[in-house]
Amino acid sequence: MADLDFERHYSDRARRAVASDIREILKMLDDPELISFAGGIPNPDAFPVAVISDITQKVLDRSPSETLQYGVTEGLSPLREALSEHMGKHGLATCPDEVMVTSGATQTIDLCSQAFLQPGRRIVTESPSFLAALLAFKSHSAEIDDIRMDSNGIQTDLLSDRLKELRRRGMSPTMLYVIPNFQNPTGVTLSESRRKELIGMANEYDFLILEDDPYGQLRYAGDALPPVKSFDDVGRVIYASSFSKILSPGIRVGWVVAHKEIIRKLSIMKQTADVHTGVLSQKIANEYLRGGHLDTQLTIIREMYGRKQRTMLTALDQFFPEETHWTHPQGGMFLWATLPDSVDTLRLLPKAIEKKVAYMHGRLFYPNGGGESEMRLNFTHASDEMITEGIRRLGGLIDAELRSH
Amino acid sequence: MADLDFERHYSDRARRAVASDIREILKMLDDPELISFAGGIPNPDAFPVAVISDITQKVLDRSPSETLQYGVTEGLSPLREALSEHMGKHGLATCPDEVMVTSGATQTIDLCSQAFLQPGRRIVTESPSFLAALLAFKSHSAEIDDIRMDSNGIQTDLLSDRLKELRRRGMSPTMLYVIPNFQNPTGVTLSESRRKELIGMANEYDFLILEDDPYGQLRYAGDALPPVKSFDDVGRVIYASSFSKILSPGIRVGWVVAHKEIIRKLSIMKQTADVHTGVLSQKIANEYLRGGHLDTQLTIIREMYGRKQRTMLTALDQFFPEETHWTHPQGGMFLWATLPDSVDTLRLLPKAIEKKVAYMHGRLFYPNGGGESEMRLNFTHASDEMITEGIRRLGGLIDAELRSH
Repeated sequence: MADLDFERHYSDRARRAVASDIREILKMLDDPELISFAGGIPNPDAFPVAVISDITQKVLDRSPSETLQYGVTEGLSPLREALSEHMGKHGLATCPDEVMVTSGATQTIDLCSQAFLQPGRRIVTESPSFLAALLAFKSHSAEIDDIRMDSNGIQTDLLSDRLKELRRRGMSPTMLYVIPNFQNPTGVTLSESRRKELIGMANEYDFLILEDDPYGQLRYAGDALPPVKSFDDVGRVIYASSFSKILSPGIRVGWVVAHKEIIRKLSIMKQTADVHTGVLSQKIANEYLRGGHLDTQLTIIREMYGRKQRTMLTALDQFFPEETHWTHPQGGMFLWATLPDSVDTLRLLPKAIEKKVAYMHGRLFYPNGGGESEMRLNFTHASDEMITEGIRRLGGLIDAELRSH
Repeated sequence: MADLDFERHYSDRARRAVASDIREILKMLDDPELISFAGGIPNPDAFPVAVISDITQKVLDRSPSETLQYGVTEGLSPLREALSEHMGKHGLATCPDEVMVTSGATQTIDLCSQAFLQPGRRIVTESPSFLAALLAFKSHSAEIDDIRMDSNGIQTDLLSDRLKELRRRGMSPTMLYVIPNFQNPTGVTLSESRRKELIGMANEYDFLILEDDPYGQLRYAGDALPPVKSFDDVGRVIYASSFSKILSPGIRVGWVVAHKEIIRKLSIMKQTADVHTGVLSQKIANEYLRGGHLDTQLTIIREMYGRKQRTMLTALDQFFPEETHWTHPQGGMFLWATLPDSVDTLRLLPKAIEKKVAYMHGRLFYPNGGGESEMRLNFTHASDEMITEGIRRLGGLIDAELRSH
């Protein structure tokens, strides 16, 4: 018999959910000879393998039943306590009841999308912003109001104008999505004064803020800024982070800090999503925090990633044409380069892959168009030598492109 | 400042998502002296702790980077291959491309709900059925048509009548949800002839079938029946299972077998849900299957659970009043008892908990009402002695209730 026509059975939401271009690009990157600045993945040389191995043995020896049995949806109590303490050390006073463990920050974004978005709702994002979050918001049919960034993050004067304009049309956003530290894709950090301004606007226009902070600990220069949520008196900021960039992405453990009422609602939705996050993974994260391994690990990661970032900046100075410019982040995993208008980074990509070097083209990160001459460069994954060589090749390609015009 | 009014920000879906009574009941069960037949959790004495510990060391030694790094959404290729082989041995010929790893069968139910349900859609379920699935379907606003079961599973003559009636009203279900083996909550197994009938009706009325089979391997008597999906020629059955009952629920690994096109769509939705299932967990499941540990483990589980089930059946014969009756499952984790109409199992529950014994009352499992005098009894978790003692106490309570009328 012929296969079914599945399309007619799909929900509207499933019809909207389409594979992102990024997956197609990532498939091209299997080539081990290719120098990839495209992904956003940690360097495996930095994984604390011995620590994880020791912890795993220990928890399976000491509490095998608890480690292998069903757990509670909100997460293991000791881990929620440890995360609450961790947040306290990093500028956000909270209590374990306001912390829920998630299966990574992507799940937090998904749960928040389910809880707050639907057709007819609006969400404000930075422009450009994190691709996976944009896809999640779109799959929930929310209208995205993207606001351009400068070197201090989302431009609050433009945001203020947009909010006024929306109000005139009888509309308002339900939520604002912001990555305050070393933003993906630009590497830009939101200034402290703008953090406060966002809270002021959220209070005035009554919207929530989803503060996505997976990179905050990856700081290589300058001083840490207080989380947006630290300026929030009424519980309108939902703070999300994860162990993916400071321990291991493969274990899928993140957390969310929010008002107890929101935690309660998100936990009901998580119950239906995956019951709870893997207990062994949670125990690894818990022992890692409580054993003081995070500080040791951050020293290693900051040294390695900071060096790789300097290597890329040096290579950009040396090999990229004068007409290009790029961000100079104080941390994180990405740089953002802006080329002259005549260079189309999507059209350039196949030529780059032919020369065995890859990046993410800018269009991917703009929900409503833009970014034709921009590119995201990840500096954490390639070896130091390959960073220099890859930027040399890219610079040559851009030069050739400029000369051809 | 006063806290926000969150309610007005919630999506319609979030407003519908309410905590299930079951969570409130489970909170009462923390008392270590209480004999609980309420949960649905495996017996931790059966967890293969040493095997898991050995596997964990091995995979962290041999492939630390792969184990701790991001993985692909569809799951590790070796695990998809091993699952495809496993299904082949259990009556379902398939290929790795038709298998996706999930973060437990609950995630499969959630992804299928997202992919196929929405307001205005209908889903057929057994009556009674699995509470968490019913909550997922309701949270997606699907209308539930529940069809009564008998000792051979869902009553296909009643289903046929319902389908005709719906057709007369211009309606049809999008999906049928069925737990074919040792159903939760009744323990009943769907007969082979009815499995074929379901496929016939699905073809005639053009609906999909979600076949949820977490208990199929827990057979203590009789012969295995072919999966519903094995009679499906066109790809309309989505088969879900999990490692929760045959290895460990805490690791959160399940799988789904479906037409490649459906796998493609579910993987796009899973990408947004949690990127991928934890890699360490997947590697534990993979080595467990490939190392032949499952067969050893099943021997242990079947012996233990089969014995516990016989213990409960013997105690029911001895202590429950004559006017009650119950199912005699050939496997699984649950029995279903039906008491005389005069006994309300929800009203009886506080009295039972006072006597330090607990069960799940029947109403929980009926999406459209019913089950007032029914109860689910789990026999896998309590010790053999406590099973006898708990049923003795319950029998006494029911006796007293009957005498009081």
